Amino acid sequence: MNIILASTSTLFGEQYLEYLKPELEKLYNGIDEIIFIPFARPGGISHEDYTTRAKDFFATININVKGLHKFEDKIEAINSAQGFFTGGGNTFLLVKTLHELKLMKVLKENIESGKPYLGCSAGSNIGGINMKTTNDMPIVYPPSFDCMGLVPFNINPHYLDSNPGIRHNGETRETRIKEFLTQNDIKVIGLREGNWIRKIDDKITVEGSELTKIFEIGKEPYEVESGTEL
Amino acid sequence: MNIILASTSTLFGEQYLEYLKPELEKLYNGIDEIIFIPFARPGGISHEDYTTRAKDFFATININVKGLHKFEDKIEAINSAQGFFTGGGNTFLLVKTLHELKLMKVLKENIESGKPYLGCSAGSNIGGINMKTTNDMPIVYPPSFDCMGLVPFNINPHYLDSNPGIRHNGETRETRIKEFLTQNDIKVIGLREGNWIRKIDDKITVEGSELTKIFEIGKEPYEVESGTEL
Repeated sequence: MNIILASTSTLFGEQYLEYLKPELEKLYNGIDEIIFIPFARPGGISHEDYTTRAKDFFATININVKGLHKFEDKIEAINSAQGFFTGGGNTFLLVKTLHELKLMKVLKENIESGKPYLGCSAGSNIGGINMKTTNDMPIVYPPSFDCMGLVPFNINPHYLDSNPGIRHNGETRETRIKEFLTQNDIKVIGLREGNWIRKIDDKITVEGSELTKIFEIGKEPYEVESGTEL
Repeated sequence: MNIILASTSTLFGEQYLEYLKPELEKLYNGIDEIIFIPFARPGGISHEDYTTRAKDFFATININVKGLHKFEDKIEAINSAQGFFTGGGNTFLLVKTLHELKLMKVLKENIESGKPYLGCSAGSNIGGINMKTTNDMPIVYPPSFDCMGLVPFNINPHYLDSNPGIRHNGETRETRIKEFLTQNDIKVIGLREGNWIRKIDDKITVEGSELTKIFEIGKEPYEVESGTEL
């Protein structure tokens, strides 16, 4: 496999995908066109405008981008593609759409065959075992929470440390993930913005500028440095 | 109907349910025992310990509390009860449990017959039309997101204004609720901590110390004062 699952597409104050540019040149080495999967986007911008945003970035590394929403036969489009990028948005909407269009399995098979894949945020959640550690609001009801399982764990993108100064009784991110572990025996990678999961063949590492927080049943959460094998 | 749907059980720095005490004396006027529904609680404390916490508070207003988890025949327990209180926790777990035990409809019918109901946080989400505006993590997969519809809108508990100082690209609460409105034509009440919905017979008002933010399709979000009829 040859994949990147990133916490976010955009670092604060930076341009779209800018911080990942050197990595993406390596990920898509030898490829001149990818399919963009815009289905996480619930509003604000259309699938077409969202695709244009990806297209503009990828033009700077000489890769053409086609939006999956434009293809009549989406399964054939995935089977014929050289590589993929799934953008962020709402994970419930993304997973519902992929299941309803019968695309989750075909996308997984194509990625497992070695085609490069980039996911950001919701697009990274679907690389995990299931979407039960998304931060998103359940604005639609997917037929299943199961995802592609490209990695043997779940991802929590945009991982955020709690702010002890806040006078608010909503649960912290850490509490939410610990609650997940009371119901599921699945490791969770709390991926801070600036970090990503890199899988090359069978080797999985965590990369980026921040420490990464890992949650497992029966252990205190612990942090690992960039470059650590997962 | 005679219900309170509160944003939170506990204000920052206060004791459990303390800020609602005068309201709860009115809500449960003439009642000496209620059923506590602890099923939102995924961990940390057991259903029994969670019930004890409610029991300790309600002892101060001379109301006995029995935990629903202790009853063999839970439908019969609900049908025989004088009133109800559903505590907070994880809404996915609460809704899954209520649907699987076939309790959502029987609870709704009992409340609609006039028995007093208090919900806090997840317990308030289930008073709305569906749970699609919860803030919780989808740690389990419920058979449906439908809730009791005691009020003709959805609730977003622990409503939190965005903090422009935060250097983080996760969605704000306002963005999430606006995304909900791209997929659903249901009014959403953003209930800040300190506020609650009060329904007496057919009259619904919002109460408490804060302004309340309301989101509707095709309108800019707007704020209403305590006492406003919804």
